[in-house]
Amino acid sequence: MAEIEKLRKSIDEISLEILNLLNKRADIVKQIGIEKEKLGIEICNPLREETLSSILCKNNKGPFSNEAIKRIFKTIYDESKDLQIVKKDKITSLKIDLGNEIFIGKDSPIIMIAGPCSIESEEQLDKTVSFIHEKGVKILRGGAYKPRTSPYSFQGLGEKGLKLLQKYAKKYNMLSVSEATTIENLKLVAQYCDIIQIGARNMYSYPLLEATGKLKKPVILKRHFSSTIKELLLSAEYISKEGNNNIILCERGIRTFETSTRNTLDVSSIPILKKESCYPVIADLSHSAGRKDILNSLLGAVIGAGVNGIMVETHINPNEALSDGNQQMNKEEFFEFINTFEKYSKIF
Amino acid sequence: MAEIEKLRKSIDEISLEILNLLNKRADIVKQIGIEKEKLGIEICNPLREETLSSILCKNNKGPFSNEAIKRIFKTIYDESKDLQIVKKDKITSLKIDLGNEIFIGKDSPIIMIAGPCSIESEEQLDKTVSFIHEKGVKILRGGAYKPRTSPYSFQGLGEKGLKLLQKYAKKYNMLSVSEATTIENLKLVAQYCDIIQIGARNMYSYPLLEATGKLKKPVILKRHFSSTIKELLLSAEYISKEGNNNIILCERGIRTFETSTRNTLDVSSIPILKKESCYPVIADLSHSAGRKDILNSLLGAVIGAGVNGIMVETHINPNEALSDGNQQMNKEEFFEFINTFEKYSKIF
Amino acid sequence: MAEIEKLRKSIDEISLEILNLLNKRADIVKQIGIEKEKLGIEICNPLREETLSSILCKNNKGPFSNEAIKRIFKTIYDESKDLQIVKKDKITSLKIDLGNEIFIGKDSPIIMIAGPCSIESEEQLDKTVSFIHEKGVKILRGGAYKPRTSPYSFQGLGEKGLKLLQKYAKKYNMLSVSEATTIENLKLVAQYCDIIQIGARNMYSYPLLEATGKLKKPVILKRHFSSTIKELLLSAEYISKEGNNNIILCERGIRTFETSTRNTLDVSSIPILKKESCYPVIADLSHSAGRKDILNSLLGAVIGAGVNGIMVETHINPNEALSDGNQQMNKEEFFEFINTFEKYSKIF
Amino acid sequence: MAEIEKLRKSIDEISLEILNLLNKRADIVKQIGIEKEKLGIEICNPLREETLSSILCKNNKGPFSNEAIKRIFKTIYDESKDLQIVKKDKITSLKIDLGNEIFIGKDSPIIMIAGPCSIESEEQLDKTVSFIHEKGVKILRGGAYKPRTSPYSFQGLGEKGLKLLQKYAKKYNMLSVSEATTIENLKLVAQYCDIIQIGARNMYSYPLLEATGKLKKPVILKRHFSSTIKELLLSAEYISKEGNNNIILCERGIRTFETSTRNTLDVSSIPILKKESCYPVIADLSHSAGRKDILNSLLGAVIGAGVNGIMVETHINPNEALSDGNQQMNKEEFFEFINTFEKYSKIF
Repeated sequence: MAEIEKLRKSIDEISLEILNLLNKRADIVKQIGIEKEKLGIEICNPLREETLSSILCKNNKGPFSNEAIKRIFKTIYDESKDLQIVKKDKITSLKIDLGNEIFIGKDSPIIMIAGPCSIESEEQLDKTVSFIHEKGVKILRGGAYKPRTSPYSFQGLGEKGLKLLQKYAKKYNMLSVSEATTIENLKLVAQYCDIIQIGARNMYSYPLLEATGKLKKPVILKRHFSSTIKELLLSAEYISKEGNNNIILCERGIRTFETSTRNTLDVSSIPILKKESCYPVIADLSHSAGRKDILNSLLGAVIGAGVNGIMVETHINPNEALSDGNQQMNKEEFFEFINTFEKYSKIF
Repeated sequence: MAEIEKLRKSIDEISLEILNLLNKRADIVKQIGIEKEKLGIEICNPLREETLSSILCKNNKGPFSNEAIKRIFKTIYDESKDLQIVKKDKITSLKIDLGNEIFIGKDSPIIMIAGPCSIESEEQLDKTVSFIHEKGVKILRGGAYKPRTSPYSFQGLGEKGLKLLQKYAKKYNMLSVSEATTIENLKLVAQYCDIIQIGARNMYSYPLLEATGKLKKPVILKRHFSSTIKELLLSAEYISKEGNNNIILCERGIRTFETSTRNTLDVSSIPILKKESCYPVIADLSHSAGRKDILNSLLGAVIGAGVNGIMVETHINPNEALSDGNQQMNKEEFFEFINTFEKYSKIF
Repeated sequence: MAEIEKLRKSIDEISLEILNLLNKRADIVKQIGIEKEKLGIEICNPLREETLSSILCKNNKGPFSNEAIKRIFKTIYDESKDLQIVKKDKITSLKIDLGNEIFIGKDSPIIMIAGPCSIESEEQLDKTVSFIHEKGVKILRGGAYKPRTSPYSFQGLGEKGLKLLQKYAKKYNMLSVSEATTIENLKLVAQYCDIIQIGARNMYSYPLLEATGKLKKPVILKRHFSSTIKELLLSAEYISKEGNNNIILCERGIRTFETSTRNTLDVSSIPILKKESCYPVIADLSHSAGRKDILNSLLGAVIGAGVNGIMVETHINPNEALSDGNQQMNKEEFFEFINTFEKYSKIF
Repeated sequence: MAEIEKLRKSIDEISLEILNLLNKRADIVKQIGIEKEKLGIEICNPLREETLSSILCKNNKGPFSNEAIKRIFKTIYDESKDLQIVKKDKITSLKIDLGNEIFIGKDSPIIMIAGPCSIESEEQLDKTVSFIHEKGVKILRGGAYKPRTSPYSFQGLGEKGLKLLQKYAKKYNMLSVSEATTIENLKLVAQYCDIIQIGARNMYSYPLLEATGKLKKPVILKRHFSSTIKELLLSAEYISKEGNNNIILCERGIRTFETSTRNTLDVSSIPILKKESCYPVIADLSHSAGRKDILNSLLGAVIGAGVNGIMVETHINPNEALSDGNQQMNKEEFFEFINTFEKYSKIF
């Protein structure tokens, strides 16, 4: 045992040496961050990491395998990145101008976005918007291009739907948001709507994200139902690097083994996204729950967690809806929901 | 197409016939529920289902396979069960007497349970309880039997730990809760503590649950990190059927692909558990987050979702803790946490 | 208890009535299937289901709620669909002509697809293809448009990469496959390559799938890492409904809590996809494992499960690869892998 | 940019210094491993890690936070452990004597374990064993203590079931295996059976594992349906550290979002468990699939992956089984399964 104790002493000493080198390295990393900021260069540069890794592998004489060394340095890279990113965020927590003197983010009240899952007809839209507007909602959502799991489900009215959305948003002096699913229809969505939505299924569609980054319109970027928080932030970076920082991140539930909700609302993502990025965060309650009977509780949860906005689905007649009837609120349910919203949003 | 339309008409007609039979069947199911209640019999009887299924299989002439028929009737059984259960719950939403004039559940204020992950020494416990008590917390938690993933991690002080817990709970006039991990140590936990905890790892240990059901003490039953909500309720039933209804359900995060939290806090489970059972629901924030920097946001989330109580871990010196140091709050962090708690819990 | 027994008898009787109506309904569903086949109409028609559901809801007098009725009938629809689909599949298990007298599917030998993750340079490609070809591989893969999680990772050489791929495929008389990520680059991929790949991240990009369906080239459709088997089949339907049935489904691992592999290879999906569709199924071992040391075992697993083809990544110098270096085999590893492949594929 | 390049050079240099220290540290870690082996001490010692971490935290002057330093060193600890463990395993790949001249593990043929999910009656057991034995199976499984999700499901015959199992194992000269669920019934299982099974639900029941470790009988330790591979190995360590190394690890599927199988068979775990431990690995196909129609394909998959044994459920009349009827094979299905087994096990 004496021998082991002696060896352990050596390990402690080497570990302290490593500690000092790690912090020395971290100091330089921070300096690079400052230099980069001066030059306006992106913080993350994976090719650099790959170059360094190959230098290390070439110089590695073991007993650690190259794989082990790469994994250890991967952790060092990751922790180092955080040194740079945290600094950036502290500076830039955003307040985004949506139009009509409505703002989201820093120091702004919680916004409410409501409307039907799909725009189905002029009558359906008119009647639905009418009761949303009655409760003071300022932003109207409505799907014209619907990515549906089955090719035989209702796929949306396309441009005709966008025109209806624009018409009724104007009629009630509301802002409008609708989802783009291709680079082609993105142009139309940007033409008719005030805010562009990138749906969960397209969070990994990087060319579409880049095209969105070239526009200046506000973008709601939904988290894919199997995306990690880091992946969502990297998808946002695809938009941001093209020059568009008007990004609103949207938690809408992740896929887990639990079946009593359609997806599991990852409420922890709200404070984490707000800590790790400068973007406002909203929550789509209808898609995560997939059921209406717990919406008021989830509303309390996301407001309590510090969300910047809420998105929900409403329909004049949910039982006859062409998509997601189960999760759209009717007028009565929506009124109760907004009453709860008003109560909670005053509090937190 | 005319032929197809004709066939579809027939399908509509048969479907309506099935609808009527389903509701006729449901009426009888409800009647049985009432009869059972009179006799004090359990609602669910899977052997009945299996008997009926085998009758159906024997009489099934296709084209549906026996498997298909079983799956369809499984849905019918499940929906039918809900008819009975919902009724029961409406009646019995519980208010549980924890002792010292502290109650949890119906019409009671949100309770706070705090304390160290593990009881490590008299000094650690004394100092930790001292600052918890200072902020008015009435229930003290502390682990004496620790189920640790690695056999070489600190396993707890056992009975010695329980004695310390009792001593300091008494000193500060608090209630105490600690985890039992076997039928043997359950007896000791029940002897020294006011509340018994069944940890996540033992949610499926049915003999332990039954032994807990034979005691009359309040039980905190934690959801396993891969348990569905239904499975948690069925585990509660193992306790309840032995005569102990003093059950407090505890959400503590589920295992998902997301790595930025230790587990994903399933906030939706709170309203669902409250709807589907008569038991109060608490949330263990420390174990789900596995990090301290988002605890205040999660606190808002679970209060907003309607939780009946909160459990968190605190330590006089988290950096030297023998278990889960990362997630235990020190005095300063805990004071800020309780300030937030007081602000939020006044509101709801 | 006598009362309960009497009620249970009634339930048994009503259940048998329901059973008979279900089978009567199933007979008509099958007839519709036959009529549709005569007319060349798609089997699945969700709008029909929605219409029927709303008829049922209107006629529902309870005690079952509309939601409960919808869930029960959802099961009936699902089981009914299987009646039609199974029939179709039995007839049409496909054998797809890939060109160069290479076939995949029914009665064809297991194919091997190999090549670098990304095409990086002419030298890298030439050297890599050279040793792949040496072992008799007939199909060359290589990424030109790389959907990378980080916008700062290497994004591929684009059209220049496709030209290189074509050049070296021709030089060695191999077929080529590369991934399309947008409707735009799909045209280029189709122009330069023999087989089009739709990557996991685009499995939900329905407009891209439809565009692929309008081409006649063979398509490898990869399962998204969080897609259910049903969703993969519905994505295939987006291609098929446009007239392209040359679809090869590709299992490449799903996202779970397990961290010792990059993704969890869902080997059960192989027999299920083959049962529930007419398409050949291949497995991408490199992406699911994310490590090279277990590839030979996974090869045995997927061959044992009845796979029609294998896809793996190889690189002349994995340590210097611009993407996914960890999971690409070098020459020596690849030779051992192909030796194992030859041993196993002779057997089955 | 020149400034940045200079800073990057420094980072490269420091990184190489860290590399050298890491390998120097690794050398000492290996030496400690050798010393420990001489003394017969356990390899892993988390308290050591905690001590070292607190030394580092105390000496950490930033800019890395204590948390960041802990995370980096956690990776170093983990990689270091592998240096010791890999060495151990290379030496000790086990061959376990099950009795009756049947062995499992190193150089032994693949074993087959079959029998009913639950022992229900003497008649059911006799008839079932009769056809299992007819196909040459040497190990009989049968549940006497059944951990069922619902307290109202059939819970097994208890000791009476064990006696029947012993009787029929003897009659047909087979070995027997049954599940223990508590420290109490473990004694009975050990008394009546040749092999003890610890079920998935009890993989985290550490006191039960320790009690099993004090016996010398072979143990089948099933992976919990939400356990990582590392956790399974640590649970095995709870048994091993008490002196019992006759451990057989059992993959039986993990819980994921996929619903077409009951659990997702994690076939990759087979080669990984064999690499990272010295224990044989078997696969329980019935529980992972939860359906019988793909069992032959899964059999090919696990044999191809290098499994040491197979476990399946059979029943003389699955439609009338008191538990898991869907997944138990009848005589005809089992005969076909064993024919496939014989074909495959010759090959791999």
